[in-house]
Amino acid sequence: MAVSVAFQGVPGAYSELAAFQHFGKEARPLPCPEFADVFRAVLSGKARYGILPIENSLTGSIHQNFDLLLHQNVWICGETKLRVSHALIAHPKATLKSVRRVFSHPQGLWQCQRFLSRLKGIELVPFFDTAGSVKHVADTSARDCAAIASKESARRYGLKVLKSGIEDNKRNFTRFLVIQKKRARPTGSRVKTSIVFDLRSVPGALHLALGAFATRGIQLLKIESRPIPGRPWEYLFYLDFGGPVGAPEAARALAHLEELASHVKVLGSYAAHAD
Amino acid sequence: MAVSVAFQGVPGAYSELAAFQHFGKEARPLPCPEFADVFRAVLSGKARYGILPIENSLTGSIHQNFDLLLHQNVWICGETKLRVSHALIAHPKATLKSVRRVFSHPQGLWQCQRFLSRLKGIELVPFFDTAGSVKHVADTSARDCAAIASKESARRYGLKVLKSGIEDNKRNFTRFLVIQKKRARPTGSRVKTSIVFDLRSVPGALHLALGAFATRGIQLLKIESRPIPGRPWEYLFYLDFGGPVGAPEAARALAHLEELASHVKVLGSYAAHAD
Repeated sequence: MAVSVAFQGVPGAYSELAAFQHFGKEARPLPCPEFADVFRAVLSGKARYGILPIENSLTGSIHQNFDLLLHQNVWICGETKLRVSHALIAHPKATLKSVRRVFSHPQGLWQCQRFLSRLKGIELVPFFDTAGSVKHVADTSARDCAAIASKESARRYGLKVLKSGIEDNKRNFTRFLVIQKKRARPTGSRVKTSIVFDLRSVPGALHLALGAFATRGIQLLKIESRPIPGRPWEYLFYLDFGGPVGAPEAARALAHLEELASHVKVLGSYAAHAD
Repeated sequence: MAVSVAFQGVPGAYSELAAFQHFGKEARPLPCPEFADVFRAVLSGKARYGILPIENSLTGSIHQNFDLLLHQNVWICGETKLRVSHALIAHPKATLKSVRRVFSHPQGLWQCQRFLSRLKGIELVPFFDTAGSVKHVADTSARDCAAIASKESARRYGLKVLKSGIEDNKRNFTRFLVIQKKRARPTGSRVKTSIVFDLRSVPGALHLALGAFATRGIQLLKIESRPIPGRPWEYLFYLDFGGPVGAPEAARALAHLEELASHVKVLGSYAAHAD
């Protein structure tokens, strides 16, 4: 049965690959111009699911999606970790030596720094997304332009892979979250939960907040701090912990956290992707 | 006495404004193409100080500089918080209505989202830095192009401010760190310390690590997690705490932390910029 999945970017984007990895060949990816449009597609029912990059194992978190998860009424219902392998992609008649300008998302350029530093005299040009930069190179049909993106996107736009596997570190993974409109009720042993909270300004507040989990033997998987707009140098904390939100010890930990926080939001419980 | 200060960007950059704010009119800013070049200028003695954006109060941390601080042997010796006010800048004969493309650093575009969404049918073009996008618009002299940057940068490149104060939130500050080659020994009551550490994989490790500070009454000012390259889903923690590293309770907290971490690096103690 076909499953509609909204993603940010153009066909060939890593998010589209992640959708197929998670949902299999039944996935019907729906391209959206911006991350906010992915949330809109899910909320309006235009797509059943959305898929969002949240964190790369080399370059870190994708802040915009943390901020959007806070404000939009969607639920995280899954995650998938995609091995990201970048290729240098250009016109069929281009060569490594003819390339003078390389387009990609800043994270794509950043993740291939070492490879790029060996190409002499080239200009790096930031672009909104990786597959979009391939489309751009295809549109210009210039032989001195190349893009950094997945090798799948080269095929999609009729271009050639000049070199594949150009990322500096092969342990390059992006973790994607799957979102939907309704709350999921996951089962099984690999369930994790994501929450976001602020803290009252008391001494040792974060230590006390983490204690609500640590003293109950709940495993902390990730913490991310984000600024609170309009309140400089104050932060929200995004936390992933092991287990479903409905487990008795998790419920007690959250009740305990609410004594320390002025706002706690559960973003969802979902099956963790095995490493 | 003139003080050389390396910064990333071109003249008119916010980092240059931060250098003047921190060092006064004696500052002799030295433009560098990349953040890594700022570190190089300081380490080689080409500049006495470097100044680096580390965190914006709306959009969050500048990850690259966290990563560079980990690997380069410089010391943080100061900080300054700059009020960031963006202007839309264009050719002297351009008007708000003639603008079709807006160039800026992605963070600049992000911080003016609401303003930009009211301009109809314009294309947003990411650029490596804000003042660099002003220089680019000056170089093209096209009337349909504009840039988002400081109003000071408009004067610098002979362009016009079409509209100033276009940031979505007026409480928009960027915090800059000042680095030097030698360790600073700050005095006074407003000193803070920055450190970075990893954690052994034991249950409740982060809670225990923060406890080393909380149980000694040391105030935690900020925590930032960053991925460890090559070890997906493992993290380094950057911590700012109140007080100098040489204070007895801080020394004991760091010794305690070393029991839990496999590596602790002190990045520097320095006078905090008052809010």
